[in-house]
This record gives sequence, structure tokens and C-alpha cells, in this order.
Amino acid sequence: MSKFASFINADEKFSIKSDVLPVLNEGEVLVKNLCTSICRSDIHTYQGKRIEKSPTILGHEIVGIIEQLGPHSPLQDLRGNELKIGDKVTWAIYASSPDDTLSKAAIPQKAKDLFKYGHEQITETSHFHGGLSEHTILRKNTPIIILKHDLPNEIATLINCSVATVAGAIRLAGPINNKSVAVYGTGMLGMIACSMLSKMGASDVIAIDENLTRLKISKQFGATDICLHNEVLQQKVDIVLEFSGSISAMQNSITILKIGGVVIWIGAVFPQSAVQINAEYIIRNLLTIKGLHNYNNDDFINAVNFMEMNHTFFDFESLIKKGFVLEDVEAAFEYATNHNPFRVSIDLT
Amino acid sequence: MSKFASFINADEKFSIKSDVLPVLNEGEVLVKNLCTSICRSDIHTYQGKRIEKSPTILGHEIVGIIEQLGPHSPLQDLRGNELKIGDKVTWAIYASSPDDTLSKAAIPQKAKDLFKYGHEQITETSHFHGGLSEHTILRKNTPIIILKHDLPNEIATLINCSVATVAGAIRLAGPINNKSVAVYGTGMLGMIACSMLSKMGASDVIAIDENLTRLKISKQFGATDICLHNEVLQQKVDIVLEFSGSISAMQNSITILKIGGVVIWIGAVFPQSAVQINAEYIIRNLLTIKGLHNYNNDDFINAVNFMEMNHTFFDFESLIKKGFVLEDVEAAFEYATNHNPFRVSIDLT
Repeated sequence: MSKFASFINADEKFSIKSDVLPVLNEGEVLVKNLCTSICRSDIHTYQGKRIEKSPTILGHEIVGIIEQLGPHSPLQDLRGNELKIGDKVTWAIYASSPDDTLSKAAIPQKAKDLFKYGHEQITETSHFHGGLSEHTILRKNTPIIILKHDLPNEIATLINCSVATVAGAIRLAGPINNKSVAVYGTGMLGMIACSMLSKMGASDVIAIDENLTRLKISKQFGATDICLHNEVLQQKVDIVLEFSGSISAMQNSITILKIGGVVIWIGAVFPQSAVQINAEYIIRNLLTIKGLHNYNNDDFINAVNFMEMNHTFFDFESLIKKGFVLEDVEAAFEYATNHNPFRVSIDLT
Repeated sequence: MSKFASFINADEKFSIKSDVLPVLNEGEVLVKNLCTSICRSDIHTYQGKRIEKSPTILGHEIVGIIEQLGPHSPLQDLRGNELKIGDKVTWAIYASSPDDTLSKAAIPQKAKDLFKYGHEQITETSHFHGGLSEHTILRKNTPIIILKHDLPNEIATLINCSVATVAGAIRLAGPINNKSVAVYGTGMLGMIACSMLSKMGASDVIAIDENLTRLKISKQFGATDICLHNEVLQQKVDIVLEFSGSISAMQNSITILKIGGVVIWIGAVFPQSAVQINAEYIIRNLLTIKGLHNYNNDDFINAVNFMEMNHTFFDFESLIKKGFVLEDVEAAFEYATNHNPFRVSIDLT
């Protein structure tokens, strides 16, 4: 038997249930979850801003230990290391067909047979696919990475959503060395972006937000300058990473780009009114707008490498509210909603 | 003495004048113009939709013969061939500082000390910089390319604006082989785009316009499919090139892209209302929007190579209304305005 938090919809509280763990299918891996953190999109589902088919198990920022390897399960992780029982692992939010055109075009997160951890309905044949649970069953074609054991669980959970998404945004932005970059939105992704950009040699990392407290914190995570959202930025930049999802931020982000500049939109993954774009300005300034949702295998590897190398350099742990266990899941989401910390973490050990 | 058509503003007719050709400065080259074609942006200036400082000499799609080389003029053209008196040449629309950051970032068309042929005011120290004239003085830092003599003048004029801009748009779109591409707007740039895309191995070249006559013509220039603008395109595409400048085309162009698709906006180089963009759609579909204005040296070389190789394969000459000389310039612009041919060409031989 394994316990999990069942979620129906925004009007009903979580219920803690138990089910028998099924026999592993072809290519599957059973993981004993160690820790799960609550992502902004989990909170949106909890609040009813996004609808998932239910019953479901929320939570996709997960770290765990391999407990069992199914028949013909993968022999190696994404970095080429042998997968064994007892390995501490994280895995991509997605599993999809590696032969699909989109996978081959380095967009596996949108490829055929897409399955997304923390976003699937519990059915007779599909269960234990979310982080608010004692176990996760990793299905075939899930990119897995073995982690060094010294990476704290509460930080390791950030890798397969926040950190990998930031790595994807930076990949789309192009070379970072000696570039000036503005980061709109200093939530968890913004903080990780500042830290990654500073380690990649950006000449300027300008954090922009309407929350001055968070802006001040961003200076501990690599921001070289801070700017309140309603203030006018005094310099133009090569690159903007837009994590806030605010329409005014997306519109402003274009006006602060140098000629030939690039803005990556990441934050606006919820319905909203249209962004107003001056096409002539885009054309005459040779600007680029790119959208990014989730990330790919390379981004995932880069995310793990970054966190393994830098988790003692930046105090990511200070951004995480700990102290909740699986039975506290309702309280954890209430805390996340009411206090808006960077992250709330659920201990599953 | 050399004759030129002086332009003041939309309310005054052109006047044919003569001035003494100045002594060439450091790095300059004197060209006897052979032919100039009238670009859409010349027509916009003629109609008062764009304002240039005047008096000016319009016309930037030019081809000519080197008549004189000034002190320390360039020894080689962009393809590495020796520049000599008598060479038939075309040159970039821009001259700018090659040491500027933007030039080094392959955006010379926006770099420091930018000078644009056909867009400059006649002053005591700056003259003979437009195509509606018997001569052009090429200033220092002008990218020049020697053309094969068998390339007809009326076609050669298209290279340094229409063809090079299309080459730039295709460069920004990325690899073309086996990609499906939609081309919005079947004016001269759209026709050249269809022909270039078909020669580069695009799997589908879908021309979209509201003008059925032009759509039918596009099939002679490489379009594999045609679609009236208000019809629903039955397939999604990897790439869209947007030459029409219409807001509805720019908005529609996003909805016909596959996941990971790219749209290049080129046409909207005039003031207009905002394009409405659904940011969530851009993000979830990992779309890219890039603006392009003018082109760079590589695009210019590619444009010459393409026209030299393909001018007998595609009947570009059929798109050009000939029969005007410098004295007919007013009639030529009236014809261009009233009859809207693909191009009107002025013979300067």
C-alpha cells in the first residue's frame, strides 16, 4: 500500500488515501518519493484557475529514491550513469515518444503520447503519477537523472520544473556572456534566473518586480541592479526573461530591448487579455519574441549540473518554507496561498 | 554635370536638375547609374505616408557601372573580386561603421554613422546618393558587389532591397529544407520569397494574399499552394514570412504555425495600430516572432548569388513595368500609384 493526497477540484479539500502499488509495466521504475515542492501551477489548480481531470495527484517538483526497476527499465540516466535501486533521482515533468518529430526537434515536452507528472487523472491503469504521494511510478520514456546525495531534498525538487525551465529560457536567449539581461518577476524562477545568469557571465542582471522586498533578496541571488516595475529602466538590455506573466511587463519588456534584442516569455501560462504589440517597432529594431513552456532534455541536464555546482553558493534553502508532511497537504496549500512564500515543501521521508 | 530628379515632398512634383559632380573623397566610388526600380517605400514617400528630409534623391534599388575610383577606395568587392572601372555593380542600401557593435553583431543596417542610399538629404557635402539620378557616389564603408554582365539591369536593381531583404528573412527563419512555409503578401518580395524557398527545398510554399490574380502568378514563382487571405488554411506550417504588413495577417500568421514555429515580420514598416497577441498561445506553442528591417552583408551576397543563378529560371522580368526614363519620373510614380504593378523600372542608360 502507498499513501497519496487525492485532489478533486478547488471546492473540495484534499483527501489522504491509500492504494496498492501495481506491478510495474515494461520500462517502468518505482520511486519512493523523498520530497515534493508546490509549484505556482499547483496553486493555480488548487485555486480553480486551472482545471485538471480528476481525481488526480498534484505535485511535479519531486525527488526520490529508486525502489524497484521494472522489466526492461532504462539501464542509464540522461547523463549516462547506470540506474540502480537506491539511487537518488529526479525526472522530467514529461514522458513522450522519442521518435516523434517534436522530440527530434528538441521539443519533447510537446511530443506524441505526452504524459505529464502531476497533471494526470488517476485511472485503473494510470496511478501514482504525482508528487503528493509516497511513491511515483516513472513510465517508459521518462528522462531520469541520478543526483549526488549531498544535494538537499528541498533544493533538488526545484530542478525538474523551476530550474530546468529557467535553463530552457536561457538556451532560447542565446549566449549570455557579457550580455545585459533583465529578469521580470522575482519569484522562484526569477531568483534562479538571476543566479544562473550571474554564473554564466552576464554583464548586468537587472531584476524587475513590483515587490521591493523580493527585489532586495534578488541581490543575494546574482542581481546586479534592481528596478521597481513602474520605474523607468535607465538602460536598454540585450535580453529580457519574462517570468511575471503580467501583460504590462510583457509590453514593457519590448521597449527596454536594444536593437537586435530578444525577449523570452515564460510566465503567462494562464488565460488573459491580449498583449498589444507595435509591429513596426519590432521590425525596425529587429527584435525577437520567443515563448517557452517547460523545457527539454538538455535543459534538464543543465539544470541538474547548475544546482549540483551552485547549491552551496546561493542560499536557495532560505526561499523554501519547510515543515509540512503529506498529511498537512491542505495546510501547506493554504500557507502557500495566504503567505505567498517562494516555495512550500512537503517532506515525504 | 549630372542630372537627377529632386524630390521635396508629396505636394510638389519632381524636378529634373543638374549639378556638378564633386571631387571624390577618401574611399568613395563614382557610379554611372544604369537602372533604378521604384520600391514600395519610395511610393510611400511620394504619397506622403513617410517623410524624408528634403531635397532628396529617391530610389535605392540601383545598378550601375563604376566610372571612377576615389583615393583609397576599396580594392575588393564583398565576394573578394577586384573592383575596377567598368565593373557592373550593385551596393547595399546602407553604409555604416564596420567597427560598431551592431556591425559586429551582423546588424550593419542599424550601426553607427548609418547612411542610407535613397533616404538622405542633399546638402553641400552630401549629394548624388539616390537612384533617380545619372550618378551615385558610393561613400566609404559601402558594401559593393560586382555583378555578371548577363544579369539584365531591370532584374539586377531588385537585388539590393527586395531580394536581400527576403534573404535576410529566410536567414532568420532558420533551415528551409523540408519545411512548410507560408508567404503572406505576394508583392515583389513575396514572389521572390516563393522562388527562393522553392530553390532551398521547402516541402510546401503556400502563398497567401487577398488578390487572386497575384496568387495565380505566384505559382510560376515556386508557390506549391495558394490561399485567399480570408480562407482558412488547411494545414499548419513551420515558418511564416509576413510581407503584407496587414495587422490581420500578422495575427493570423501566429495561428497557422506548428508548435515550435517561427514567423518573420517584414512588411509592417509604417505606423499602424497594435497587433493583438495571445501570450499564453505563444508560450504553450513555443512560437517565435522576429522582426526584420533591411538586411546584412551575408544576405546581400546570398541575394546576388540567387539572382545570378536563377534569373533565367524564374521570369522576374515579367513583373517589371519598363519604358520610363529619368525625365518620366513623375509619370513613373503616377503609374506605380495608379496601376500597382510589382515594380516600375527607370532606364538611366
